[in-house]
Amino acid sequence: MKPRPAQLQLCIDECLACYQSCLGMAMSHCLEQGGPHLDPAHFRLMMACSEMCRTAAHFMLIGVAHHQHLCADCASICRQCADSCDPLEGMDECAAICRRCADACERIAG
Amino acid sequence: MKPRPAQLQLCIDECLACYQSCLGMAMSHCLEQGGPHLDPAHFRLMMACSEMCRTAAHFMLIGVAHHQHLCADCASICRQCADSCDPLEGMDECAAICRRCADACERIAG
Amino acid sequence: MKPRPAQLQLCIDECLACYQSCLGMAMSHCLEQGGPHLDPAHFRLMMACSEMCRTAAHFMLIGVAHHQHLCADCASICRQCADSCDPLEGMDECAAICRRCADACERIAG
Amino acid sequence: MKPRPAQLQLCIDECLACYQSCLGMAMSHCLEQGGPHLDPAHFRLMMACSEMCRTAAHFMLIGVAHHQHLCADCASICRQCADSCDPLEGMDECAAICRRCADACERIAG
Repeated sequence: MKPRPAQLQLCIDECLACYQSCLGMAMSHCLEQGGPHLDPAHFRLMMACSEMCRTAAHFMLIGVAHHQHLCADCASICRQCADSCDPLEGMDECAAICRRCADACERIAG
Repeated sequence: MKPRPAQLQLCIDECLACYQSCLGMAMSHCLEQGGPHLDPAHFRLMMACSEMCRTAAHFMLIGVAHHQHLCADCASICRQCADSCDPLEGMDECAAICRRCADACERIAG
Repeated sequence: MKPRPAQLQLCIDECLACYQSCLGMAMSHCLEQGGPHLDPAHFRLMMACSEMCRTAAHFMLIGVAHHQHLCADCASICRQCADSCDPLEGMDECAAICRRCADACERIAG
Repeated sequence: MKPRPAQLQLCIDECLACYQSCLGMAMSHCLEQGGPHLDPAHFRLMMACSEMCRTAAHFMLIGVAHHQHLCADCASICRQCADSCDPLEGMDECAAICRRCADACERIAG
């Protein structure tokens, strides 16, 4: 198999890191902290971000051209999720991972 | 729980029907027929369409506003997949399901 | 394509109905009610049940023999989820859907 | 957030590596090589293995006890997939990744 372009592999890696971070934090830190961490709008965004990242990675692995649209959507959701994490205690690393994923997705989206 | 708007539920149903049709046909009819049914571009589109439909339904169930972008993407992939199915033997029903899903997704995308 | 056996299609349908019910209720009713509806153990079970049902359906659509193990796991998680829903206000229908899915999965698991 | 146990994080990493390898190879090398690489039984196993790995990782991220059953299923599918890759040209690395994932899943399954 010819190797995947490095920029694409980096974006897959960032998407799967962000998927892990958002799902993992939602299911542990957010559920256990409660209060603003469980505000429905924030929590749904965490779940949507994790699913979007998982799907963007999946499209890059399938290898269809449409992955660029998915990466554009993914970047947008990741930035919203990062902004929603910013004011919350203990979510700094999650916000940073979201922004790194958004950067990588924007490079792929072109 | 307040019931989901009928148009949204219809779109979830069409997305899950199209997910089933594309994944099921790819894994049975296309794999068994071979030839043009296994042309990489066609087959990848079948897999991308099934995944996109699954994800669009997931976003509608999560209940985030971003589902409209996903439904717009989904409609576009479903139409491409239907066009790719058209010339192939035994894929008429799959193409019809893809187009019905595209219609439902376009109504949600607005 | 030869049609899928009726019992298998029924199980796919029940799995996708239970996926919708658990994910939809978690993201709306549970998040909005709070209190015991957001108990971490209950909420994680709702998320695990929705994912398990989605995956069991996926395996039946792929058509690999291993789907029987997945259906056995799915039945077990669905029963746990139903039991966890029982004491909670407004979760009766979700519990009933989980039990119907568990019944269908047990018939496939053999 | 308290850090995830190292063995669990390792298993999540191996599952996501195996998901990437099986899906990526199926959608590129197998589709392009054709012949025995597209034998329906082999190809379905590649798709089932990638989905099982993705789901096992998801369960570990959700944090429900049932992840041990999923890891046991995952190990079994990964070993079958590795054996199916062994006789095929260019699939050595994919088989090795499947076996590494199976090892990690067996340690978690206990």
